[in-house]
Amino acid sequence: MTHNRLLGIDPGSRLTGFGIIDWQARKAAYISSGCVRINYKASLDQRLLEIFNAVEQLITTYQPSHLAIEKVFMHKNADAAIKLGQARGVAIACAAKQGLKFAEYSPNEIKQAVVGRGHADKQQVQHMVKVLLNLPGTPQADAADALAVALCHAYRHQSEFNT
Amino acid sequence: MTHNRLLGIDPGSRLTGFGIIDWQARKAAYISSGCVRINYKASLDQRLLEIFNAVEQLITTYQPSHLAIEKVFMHKNADAAIKLGQARGVAIACAAKQGLKFAEYSPNEIKQAVVGRGHADKQQVQHMVKVLLNLPGTPQADAADALAVALCHAYRHQSEFNT
Repeated sequence: MTHNRLLGIDPGSRLTGFGIIDWQARKAAYISSGCVRINYKASLDQRLLEIFNAVEQLITTYQPSHLAIEKVFMHKNADAAIKLGQARGVAIACAAKQGLKFAEYSPNEIKQAVVGRGHADKQQVQHMVKVLLNLPGTPQADAADALAVALCHAYRHQSEFNT
Repeated sequence: MTHNRLLGIDPGSRLTGFGIIDWQARKAAYISSGCVRINYKASLDQRLLEIFNAVEQLITTYQPSHLAIEKVFMHKNADAAIKLGQARGVAIACAAKQGLKFAEYSPNEIKQAVVGRGHADKQQVQHMVKVLLNLPGTPQADAADALAVALCHAYRHQSEFNT
């Protein structure tokens, strides 16, 4: 397990974004990011297993020490809330099983940490993720959200990571 | 894995009921049931890990071949829907990881199968579970719900199990 490596996850029943960064030499360094596309034609159990296996594979490959994930608030649609909850629960339990430390941040905390304003829009978050991690291009939206929550966790805990 | 052994789960963020039955000699036989109490003071990731580990332990101990679970509908409270979704997703993914076959049934399908009426109340379901499985006492409510969904699956698939 890499002591200063953070995995951010943006879980969804169709797309699950991920972002991996290191905190080294007092700043964040990009390691990997992407988006797992879930086969929406598969049965529920197989879709949730896909998420579990994808997160497990990421942890095996990159050996992160922390999982950071966005807090979920009030969904208007309870059916969508169940689906999101299922995907989210699987990702969190998988990381807990591998012994990762866990943190949740509200959307406003993430925007504040990455953009400097709690009410920034999605494009501003994507842009700042690109700038802060010195990326050659703008990451896909779900990957950017996952990198943003990982960055938020890194900034909040940098004193711990610097030691 | 025991070919005709069914695991029913009634997942919840605080209590997760389970029931295990066998289909043998053309009828259902009780194997085990109970209720896993989740430590509500623990952090979210540790609570979800408790559910994962409990389901994994049940599967290791009893070697069921099928998971049956109640379908979830419209929750008024989206926050409760997220919490239920998380617990449910973890239980389903854990069983899928162990290779169990998966089935979902609506509350009405379960009541119809166990009581004979789609609008039976909880007490009637508990009573019929006790009668059908020849139990010495009335099972705890979450365990009864888990046994009921397992029975529903057994009745629906008895031709397959009889072979």
